[in-house]
Amino acid sequence: MKTILVRLGSKTYPIYVGKGVSRGIGKTLSRKRIAGACFIITNPAIRSLYGCAISKSLAGSGIETRFLAVADSEKSKSHKVWIRALEDLAVFDKGRGACVMALGGGVIGDLAGFVAATYRRGVAFIQVPTTLLAQVDSAIGGKTAIDTEFAKNLIGAFYQPKAVFSDTSFLKSLPMRQIRNGLAEVIKYGVILDKGLFSFIENNIAKILRLDERCMQYIISRCSQLKAEVVTVDERELLGYRSILNFGHTAGHAIEAAGSYRKAIGHGEAVAIGMLIAFDIAVKTGMADPLAAQRLGRLIQRAGLAT
Amino acid sequence: MKTILVRLGSKTYPIYVGKGVSRGIGKTLSRKRIAGACFIITNPAIRSLYGCAISKSLAGSGIETRFLAVADSEKSKSHKVWIRALEDLAVFDKGRGACVMALGGGVIGDLAGFVAATYRRGVAFIQVPTTLLAQVDSAIGGKTAIDTEFAKNLIGAFYQPKAVFSDTSFLKSLPMRQIRNGLAEVIKYGVILDKGLFSFIENNIAKILRLDERCMQYIISRCSQLKAEVVTVDERELLGYRSILNFGHTAGHAIEAAGSYRKAIGHGEAVAIGMLIAFDIAVKTGMADPLAAQRLGRLIQRAGLAT
Repeated sequence: MKTILVRLGSKTYPIYVGKGVSRGIGKTLSRKRIAGACFIITNPAIRSLYGCAISKSLAGSGIETRFLAVADSEKSKSHKVWIRALEDLAVFDKGRGACVMALGGGVIGDLAGFVAATYRRGVAFIQVPTTLLAQVDSAIGGKTAIDTEFAKNLIGAFYQPKAVFSDTSFLKSLPMRQIRNGLAEVIKYGVILDKGLFSFIENNIAKILRLDERCMQYIISRCSQLKAEVVTVDERELLGYRSILNFGHTAGHAIEAAGSYRKAIGHGEAVAIGMLIAFDIAVKTGMADPLAAQRLGRLIQRAGLAT
Repeated sequence: MKTILVRLGSKTYPIYVGKGVSRGIGKTLSRKRIAGACFIITNPAIRSLYGCAISKSLAGSGIETRFLAVADSEKSKSHKVWIRALEDLAVFDKGRGACVMALGGGVIGDLAGFVAATYRRGVAFIQVPTTLLAQVDSAIGGKTAIDTEFAKNLIGAFYQPKAVFSDTSFLKSLPMRQIRNGLAEVIKYGVILDKGLFSFIENNIAKILRLDERCMQYIISRCSQLKAEVVTVDERELLGYRSILNFGHTAGHAIEAAGSYRKAIGHGEAVAIGMLIAFDIAVKTGMADPLAAQRLGRLIQRAGLAT
């Protein structure tokens, strides 16, 4: 297990990365006196895979749990689902001081975080990301949100979790396409912040795609560290520095939006194409080396992401 | 004009108290580079009284404005009104970086604050309280909320304004009953935190009820100072200290709830009765001096609050 700290003064919190770290959730919440009850927002598939084990870990420390399983879709980030979650939580909580846990990918994390941020002016929030994309990106940094018909993430808050549990054993149940999607963000960290990470992915791509434990723990903890550093400098995206994380996302978002009707293109796939477009422009304007662009193209191809 | 600072590190903000301070809003927002556009949440009566003057102050500094007038009722603190405000704001804002202004009493302040807290993960918020109750209490300290059918203030956030403009000239348009309602909270500050303020109210009650400018500026700025000090120590009500402000509110809330069908009892009236009940219990258990209870009862009576 590796522990990374997101340093934000009195809001500093740990990210635990490794095989089986979710088994320690109950003990950690109890030791840190985070809450005596836990309201877990998840989706039906994840609940049936991991719900029992998480409940057991919490029950072992005397923490009562209640699940709310929402549809596995961006549509769950609506104000209707959010209100329903708050009302369910109010029925469960009864003033006992419940915390809210996100058990799932990015959609669950964004929704559950906004529930935690807004229930009785804010209660403790725990992130248990189950996808590679959420483990290396969305579960870290406190961005929470729901959508409206006007725009994605129009309504939201910056609200930091008390802890993040990135259990690498969750990744085994993911379809390979979701692993590749997460890998695009990992490659992005390599491009923008860490040449060593980029080389590591090049040298270990086969092992990574086989979910080799040592490799996965390394890339997830390294990405967590890099994101933590960015968030420490620019928590609320006020200085412009945090926007470095949006590399590949400008064209990427357009591609995702264009493809959304057919669900043809995943977030990571769009980011991969977005990075290549950004590099292409940079090469044409003389700001990037064509060899670097080729090297990125090759790695994206080897990772099985559409180019 | 008096300026009081609510000291909260990087979130420190000023409260401006005095006659005509709202005329300086445009210049202040412009000087502090708070926003280039301002979305003003108010009610129809307040808009027709003060809307033009506020718009003019903002326009004078090149700040574009848009008003949203909601019904003058606790019912405006619903998630439906909140969503409508967010969508209107999205249409108005168009990424120009609008701030949100609350122009009204406690209901408007709670709603507008929650809109500011949740629009695009938080935009600048300005409080322009128009009732005595809001000027001495609810506009200070960052409590924002909306209600659900389950409970009042179930959904909300701690979200501090960038500035508070407590213009004493707004008070002239209030019915005397609303002045008395605010006065109950002023008396509460005297009881719990400042004997000198209590004596001042005793010695000047007639002038206060006539809205004498010097008296009003003194009591509003003194209460703002006292509340600011409590909020600095315990911003998020985590230490228990902030709950000192709830003196008189335990029995008070019950009285208010019981009376809510007929709108017979205002917040301040309920708090006045709540304080007397609390004192009565304290006297019976030997924890308070019966003379002090009598003195409080006399002042509440002279303020024209039901005892």
